Amino acid sequence: MKIFKKVFFFIFSVFLFSNIAFAQKLISQETQICLFCHKTVTPGIVRDWEASLHSKVTLKEALSKKPLSRKVNVDSNLVKNKDKVIGCAECHTLNPQLHKDSFDHNGFKVHIVVSPEDCKVCHLKEVEEYKKNLMSKAYVNLKKNPLYAMLIKASFEIFPNKLSESDACLACHGTKIEIKGKIKKKTMFGEMEFPLLSGWPNNGVGRINPDSSKGACTSCHPRHSFSIEIARKPYTCSQCHKGPDVPAYKVYAVSKHGNIFFSEQNDMNFKNTPWKIGEDFKVPTCAVCHISLIVDSNDNVIVERTHQMNDRIAWRIFGLIYAYPHPKDSETFKFKNKAGLSLPTELTGEFVKEVLIDKKEMKRRENKMKNICLGCHSNSWVEGFFNRFHNTIKTTNVQSLKATKIVLKAWKEGVADNSNPFDEAIEKMWIEQWLFYANSVRFASAMGGADYGVFENGRWYLKKNIQNMENWLKFMLKTK
Amino acid sequence: MKIFKKVFFFIFSVFLFSNIAFAQKLISQETQICLFCHKTVTPGIVRDWEASLHSKVTLKEALSKKPLSRKVNVDSNLVKNKDKVIGCAECHTLNPQLHKDSFDHNGFKVHIVVSPEDCKVCHLKEVEEYKKNLMSKAYVNLKKNPLYAMLIKASFEIFPNKLSESDACLACHGTKIEIKGKIKKKTMFGEMEFPLLSGWPNNGVGRINPDSSKGACTSCHPRHSFSIEIARKPYTCSQCHKGPDVPAYKVYAVSKHGNIFFSEQNDMNFKNTPWKIGEDFKVPTCAVCHISLIVDSNDNVIVERTHQMNDRIAWRIFGLIYAYPHPKDSETFKFKNKAGLSLPTELTGEFVKEVLIDKKEMKRRENKMKNICLGCHSNSWVEGFFNRFHNTIKTTNVQSLKATKIVLKAWKEGVADNSNPFDEAIEKMWIEQWLFYANSVRFASAMGGADYGVFENGRWYLKKNIQNMENWLKFMLKTK
Amino acid sequence: MKIFKKVFFFIFSVFLFSNIAFAQKLISQETQICLFCHKTVTPGIVRDWEASLHSKVTLKEALSKKPLSRKVNVDSNLVKNKDKVIGCAECHTLNPQLHKDSFDHNGFKVHIVVSPEDCKVCHLKEVEEYKKNLMSKAYVNLKKNPLYAMLIKASFEIFPNKLSESDACLACHGTKIEIKGKIKKKTMFGEMEFPLLSGWPNNGVGRINPDSSKGACTSCHPRHSFSIEIARKPYTCSQCHKGPDVPAYKVYAVSKHGNIFFSEQNDMNFKNTPWKIGEDFKVPTCAVCHISLIVDSNDNVIVERTHQMNDRIAWRIFGLIYAYPHPKDSETFKFKNKAGLSLPTELTGEFVKEVLIDKKEMKRRENKMKNICLGCHSNSWVEGFFNRFHNTIKTTNVQSLKATKIVLKAWKEGVADNSNPFDEAIEKMWIEQWLFYANSVRFASAMGGADYGVFENGRWYLKKNIQNMENWLKFMLKTK
Repeated sequence: MKIFKKVFFFIFSVFLFSNIAFAQKLISQETQICLFCHKTVTPGIVRDWEASLHSKVTLKEALSKKPLSRKVNVDSNLVKNKDKVIGCAECHTLNPQLHKDSFDHNGFKVHIVVSPEDCKVCHLKEVEEYKKNLMSKAYVNLKKNPLYAMLIKASFEIFPNKLSESDACLACHGTKIEIKGKIKKKTMFGEMEFPLLSGWPNNGVGRINPDSSKGACTSCHPRHSFSIEIARKPYTCSQCHKGPDVPAYKVYAVSKHGNIFFSEQNDMNFKNTPWKIGEDFKVPTCAVCHISLIVDSNDNVIVERTHQMNDRIAWRIFGLIYAYPHPKDSETFKFKNKAGLSLPTELTGEFVKEVLIDKKEMKRRENKMKNICLGCHSNSWVEGFFNRFHNTIKTTNVQSLKATKIVLKAWKEGVADNSNPFDEAIEKMWIEQWLFYANSVRFASAMGGADYGVFENGRWYLKKNIQNMENWLKFMLKTK
Repeated sequence: MKIFKKVFFFIFSVFLFSNIAFAQKLISQETQICLFCHKTVTPGIVRDWEASLHSKVTLKEALSKKPLSRKVNVDSNLVKNKDKVIGCAECHTLNPQLHKDSFDHNGFKVHIVVSPEDCKVCHLKEVEEYKKNLMSKAYVNLKKNPLYAMLIKASFEIFPNKLSESDACLACHGTKIEIKGKIKKKTMFGEMEFPLLSGWPNNGVGRINPDSSKGACTSCHPRHSFSIEIARKPYTCSQCHKGPDVPAYKVYAVSKHGNIFFSEQNDMNFKNTPWKIGEDFKVPTCAVCHISLIVDSNDNVIVERTHQMNDRIAWRIFGLIYAYPHPKDSETFKFKNKAGLSLPTELTGEFVKEVLIDKKEMKRRENKMKNICLGCHSNSWVEGFFNRFHNTIKTTNVQSLKATKIVLKAWKEGVADNSNPFDEAIEKMWIEQWLFYANSVRFASAMGGADYGVFENGRWYLKKNIQNMENWLKFMLKTK
Repeated sequence: MKIFKKVFFFIFSVFLFSNIAFAQKLISQETQICLFCHKTVTPGIVRDWEASLHSKVTLKEALSKKPLSRKVNVDSNLVKNKDKVIGCAECHTLNPQLHKDSFDHNGFKVHIVVSPEDCKVCHLKEVEEYKKNLMSKAYVNLKKNPLYAMLIKASFEIFPNKLSESDACLACHGTKIEIKGKIKKKTMFGEMEFPLLSGWPNNGVGRINPDSSKGACTSCHPRHSFSIEIARKPYTCSQCHKGPDVPAYKVYAVSKHGNIFFSEQNDMNFKNTPWKIGEDFKVPTCAVCHISLIVDSNDNVIVERTHQMNDRIAWRIFGLIYAYPHPKDSETFKFKNKAGLSLPTELTGEFVKEVLIDKKEMKRRENKMKNICLGCHSNSWVEGFFNRFHNTIKTTNVQSLKATKIVLKAWKEGVADNSNPFDEAIEKMWIEQWLFYANSVRFASAMGGADYGVFENGRWYLKKNIQNMENWLKFMLKTK
């Protein structure tokens, strides 16, 4: 391989001192070698990277920006090559000793899966915040909670089959990427050896990477442009937040905010940092409310950037039987309620208070969100809105409890069996009550998407489903 | 408060005669005072308004435009300050005596909820037309029809709860905004007193405003840009017309028209008035067919602007058991059929002719629509299209009747009870037959959205549902 | 009529030699006559055509383009008027003897329905490829397969009604356009006679045209711009590929590809030919993967253009009980399995190998697709992706078989009747198993649309439906 590298460097040097050398002086020699082949082998990747900020801005330049505009945060002394832009080699050859998927590739130690730990070299704060984000635990929380294991077993016939699982739940939750050996493949430049990965490809938010880190920045910042513009548009979030279990994007799309976004997105600026309310954007996207650093026209900070997505929301409104205050810790599989179940509430809805944020913290988070609303809405508007939202949380929890009581009675009367609480027809109706209908109503309330609270998986089904469950129970009790 | 006003005027005067005074000479002094604080307090609102026509065009200029380009219509002598642009104060302090939500705000009588009666000062014709629009009665028609009260009671468990109702049906239909007292709040400028409103916020089309007027122009012309561009794009209509009960936007999205709109919207002009067929736009949006003033290349009027949305449509194709000719009067809660129900048809489908437009008027309306079609389609295309649409109305009414007869039999045989005709499982299947499936098929036919007439809530369900209803009835009769 | 023509020519000549004559010298005299009236009669059509390439490029110019940029392919000697652009007359008066819908129109023999045989004069290769495309047989395959006739009869109550059928299945599959006589109509220029067409309007992919040809190029290249831009955007495909039976667009919309397309479509070039990966576009649309000529930055061909849409896909993943290798021949109604049914598989899933492409051809097709993927993805990414997809085909076929076995048992036990295998409640559940749920899971796998493989018509329903079918069978066997 050493020889290969030398030959490469020689061919490359000729290339380097040719007419395009000047333009490339900001690109590290290592990355230039990558580009030399990959321009031909994977032109799409290279072009996408060329369009990115990474290909144009050196770390030194990035660090010299004004604090509010800066997107990197790191002790620059720790980084070599501050005068170079961020290219292939800067990420894919970083700390090879940590990456189990690192392999010899034309004389370089290259790893396929760039992880948050790699991004952290420049984006320390974001990566640290993301660790507190529920999303970073989307894989472990799913796999280590025995209740979820039962739900999955009951819901998806073709599991356990790792490929199916990767194609379904783990597409969003993230896979565990493991090295299964090596494989030789014919390439444009002769036969080469690559690591054989399982769980790959995947961009899931809680992905377990070969360096043991959790998450994939590419979930929202797609390779290889890593465009802030894309991450700020709602299409990104729609990848995982569009199904009946979490219809956030659908609700946004029919909201007043969504309407204006779709109508006027071309007149908005999705690239500026900090992001100016009214000036850069006139309606919020998902990122505005949940993530981005927002300032007013005088650069007063309205809300700080956060990559802990629940930093501005008090209530967790989807995924489980009831809406509940957000958990303190992102590792929710560790929770135990009084009945010993890994849940943040009892089956009958009472909160497991010790694992959830308290009222003060809830208020603190909600106030952050309200500050954003107040940029364009009056106080009475905002209070009226949250008033309704809190009512919806209460009323939908009541509807979930009603469904739960029917199931509890069915178990008690022996017409259903709770050895797996999720696998029988009546239990699936119960699941749909909270996972589809109560969720939909809550998202509609949280984001102003009217029909998702009415006929589109909304209150119409919330009641009809109860009725069907009651009729079923009546029939079963009569005929048992 | 008087002192506050004086202090304000003083601070403001200094501000006024500073360097930016010149640029603001078209802005009334009152509005400048509003802006002085609100630029900081609600920067999003101010920026949005600044981007609007209201902030740039005085009434005098607006009135001087050529008739076809003019969007205001009013006796200008009735309006003071014709030389000023339309700013905060122009709308929010208009006729305070009429607004129950008017309150003292830094020396001004300000009302929160700007109503059609305020807009009418400049946009008289639109407001008068809108009164004939079914939408303007969306609240009263829902609340005053005893049949709807039963439907709502049967459909949505968590009503009556005003907050839930506002979050559900009334989000689109409009709330009744009432003043519940006063509330003191801390603001950037010290404690202030505001009216406490119930039913707020809301932009529903039939909103009952504190000045007793009906509707909200902001339903379609969102604050504070009041952009004609937004109102002309289909995203606006999608806010309320996307659910299974009224899937207009979804159908449009998969139609040929929708396809071309999404593909080429950036090459179209959504701002020009009058709106030129082929030149400004090459495919219709909702507004083209239902509302806007459309001209050909020589400014010949193809169709006049209307804010009575059914002025170009003969049939009401959604919402009730059967499709029927549009009602003459927008207050449909007053209708009574032979059975005494507030419906424009009998339960078995016969029209209550005296309350519905006659064939001549139907033809007149349909011809207006056809004229728009004929801008881009041949006569045989248009006739073929309407021929199919009329057939769809007939055949879907037959399918609704089939479902109705099953329910009627269930009532007669005593296996269901019509004290509330909407609350039992079989009755809900009946509702879905017309409210979801027949509607979907008709919208698909009216707008060319194929699968909404087939598998996507279409004819597949229209038949399957009948079958399930028949099986249910058979089972009930056998086991009763 | 002759006189009419002469008068016309006279008026027209005056017009011709006026100031705009020069600009129109590339427009044939015949087309100029069309335009003279139709500018007024159908301004939308004329404006749309004016914006097209057809109105600007002569055949001679089109033929002189470099091979990779050329979109016409024809022996230019066969075409008269190579120096003229392609206008109304060039298509609508072509070979009148072949068009049963040809009629006398102001002295010209005009036909309403322009067919692929007309387009073929310049676009020979595309039309020939399209004949091998399954889509071109969408009408005949639907109408001539006795099994489909039974499915349609069982599914859609209001058939046979030709108007309903045209409005439903045939909207996408294509109608048969027939001449039913003549009709006189009042026009701007007096009374005129037109042919009376049935099955019109329609743009379905397998339309039977009055010249007996099959298909409508306007399905994807809408009149009268025939814009390649529109055809290359996914909105076009969404017209027919969005329902629960074939949710391709929906899946694309939530995929990473879809996300980036929606976010960055304005920065992409949808007009360039050949289409450059990474440069013109950075993510695939439907056309990239299935149709377009794709090159790299050095104009190396990555994949050739094809209008046989399955030329790059090995598996047919929707429409029938099982996923199966693509058929060799596009006329699938001719297939017979061992049981004598017009199906490419047995009811129990075994392939009818003799009518399906073999493994070598499957590999050849899949490799074409992979070459496109490899433009932006590493080898291990692509292999991992296809590995999962093949697993999904297997596992969903297993789920379809499970449902089939329940139905087979129901038939055997006499609790359902297979005289029409599609018309009973249990049979409809079976249909939904493969037509909705298995399809959805496969599309999600093929295109990376996570929730369509999970809760949005995905694996959740795949299992729940089996459970409901089993419960039904159990109940029926117990009570029979």
